[in-house]
Amino acid sequence: MRIGFLDSGVGGFSVLSEVQRKAPELDKLYLADTAHFPFGPRPGEEILAIVGAAVRFLQSKGAEALVLACNSSSSVVEGLSFPIPVIGLIEHGAKAAISATRSGRIGVIATEGTIRSGSYDRWLHRLGGPSIYVKSVATPLLAPLVESGRTSGRAAFGIVLSQLSPLLEEDIDVLLLGCTHYPFLNHLFREILPEGVTLVDPASSVAELARDLYQGGEGSIEFYVTGSVKVFEKIGRKVLGAPIRAQRISLNLHF
Amino acid sequence: MRIGFLDSGVGGFSVLSEVQRKAPELDKLYLADTAHFPFGPRPGEEILAIVGAAVRFLQSKGAEALVLACNSSSSVVEGLSFPIPVIGLIEHGAKAAISATRSGRIGVIATEGTIRSGSYDRWLHRLGGPSIYVKSVATPLLAPLVESGRTSGRAAFGIVLSQLSPLLEEDIDVLLLGCTHYPFLNHLFREILPEGVTLVDPASSVAELARDLYQGGEGSIEFYVTGSVKVFEKIGRKVLGAPIRAQRISLNLHF
Repeated sequence: MRIGFLDSGVGGFSVLSEVQRKAPELDKLYLADTAHFPFGPRPGEEILAIVGAAVRFLQSKGAEALVLACNSSSSVVEGLSFPIPVIGLIEHGAKAAISATRSGRIGVIATEGTIRSGSYDRWLHRLGGPSIYVKSVATPLLAPLVESGRTSGRAAFGIVLSQLSPLLEEDIDVLLLGCTHYPFLNHLFREILPEGVTLVDPASSVAELARDLYQGGEGSIEFYVTGSVKVFEKIGRKVLGAPIRAQRISLNLHF
Repeated sequence: MRIGFLDSGVGGFSVLSEVQRKAPELDKLYLADTAHFPFGPRPGEEILAIVGAAVRFLQSKGAEALVLACNSSSSVVEGLSFPIPVIGLIEHGAKAAISATRSGRIGVIATEGTIRSGSYDRWLHRLGGPSIYVKSVATPLLAPLVESGRTSGRAAFGIVLSQLSPLLEEDIDVLLLGCTHYPFLNHLFREILPEGVTLVDPASSVAELARDLYQGGEGSIEFYVTGSVKVFEKIGRKVLGAPIRAQRISLNLHF
C-alpha cells in the first residue's frame, strides 16, 4: 500500500518518521511543495489549490491515501472530499489532547491560519463536550524561529515566552502543538510552562491511524520536491540524519 | 514608459509608493508573486527562476525595466543580465548608507538569504573603501513580526531588541534597512538604538534613480497576483489606504 505525504518542506518529516516507526512496511511518497513554502500564512484558497494538485500528482504515482503532514493545510481541508482519502492532523491531534487532559483545560498553539480556522477549537468541543475549556493562541514567530535554527539561548527563550504569554495564567494541563515545527521547541515549552503540563504532538496519533487503516508494502520512501532539489536534500539529510534523494516536479494549481 | 515591480506581496508597496511620489507620470505594473511568498528564506535558484519568469511576463505587458521591490531577490540577481534592465535595491541602498555615515560604521539588518549573499557588505566596501566597517546581522523574525501586525507593545519591543542585540555595542551611526518590511518597525529601532543613528531605507534611492532614468507615461498602476486575488486586494487596500484591483496570473518557473 502506497501512501502520500504533503508538506511545504521538512516540517512534515516528524509525521513521516512517526509513520515509518509505527508502520514501516507501508510505501511512502513524500511531496515537499517547497515552491509554496510556508503554508502557514497562506490564504485558504491557495492551500486548497495546492492540496488538489498534490492529490492529483500523488494519485498518478499510485498513492491510495494522502496524509497532510502540516496543520495549516489540515485545517483548511477539514470536511472536504477528494478522490482518495485525505487524513489531516486536526481531528487526531484533538483526540489525543482530550485523552491526555484531566482538568479539561487545553491550550492550543499554531500558525495564524490554523487558529483563525477554528478547527482545533471545534474538534476539541466536538470530542470533549461543552465543559472543555480551550485557549487558542496564534504563535506566528515560532515556526520562523525553528527555521532560523536558533532554538536555544536567551533570545529564543524570550521569544517563546512572549508568544506563550497569553497561556501562562490559564491553568491548562495540556498544550496541543498545532504545527509540526513546534516539537523542536519542547525544551523551552517545558522550561516556561508549569510542571505537569502534557505536550501533545498530533503526529503520533496520525501514525497510529495509518498503521491501523493500511497494510502491506515494501517499506520504500520516495521524495518529490517543487523547489530547489539541492537545498531540500541538504536540509533533509540534516533533519533525518541520513542522505536522501529527491526528484523535482511541478504542481499546476487550479484556482 | 512602463516599468514593472516584483515582490512576493505588499512589502514592495513601500518602493512602489516612493516611485509614485517621485516619478508619478511613469506607468507601473506591480507583480505580487504571492504564490511564492515570502522570498526571504528561498534558495537562490528558486528566486532566479521567479525573476526570470517575472521578466518574461512583465515584458509581455510592455514593461521596459523591472524594479525588484525586495532585497532578497535583489541580492540574488546582482551582476546578472536580463532582456530588460533589472534594478535592485542593494547597490542603491549601499550608496545611500555611504552618503549618510560620518563615522564609517554601518549596521545592516536583513533576512538570512540577503545577509548570507554578502551583497550589502560587498557594495558598501566597493563604494566606501576598505576603511568602512560593516556589521551585518540576519534578523529572520522581523519580517514575520511585521506580517503578524503586532508591531507595538512589550512583546514586539522584546523581539526587536533580541534581534538587534549583536548591533548594540557596535557604535554604528547608520542602520541600513535591508528588507522592505523593516520601515514599519522604525519606531522600535529608534527606541532601541542610540540617538543619532540614521535609518536608511533603499526604496528612496531607487525611486530617485527611476525618476532620473525614465520619463513619460500616464501615471497608471496595474496589479497582478499569482495567489489569492481577494486576500491581496484586501491587504493591499489596508496598506495603501485605497481600494485596488488585481488580476490573477500564473508564473511558469524554469529551473
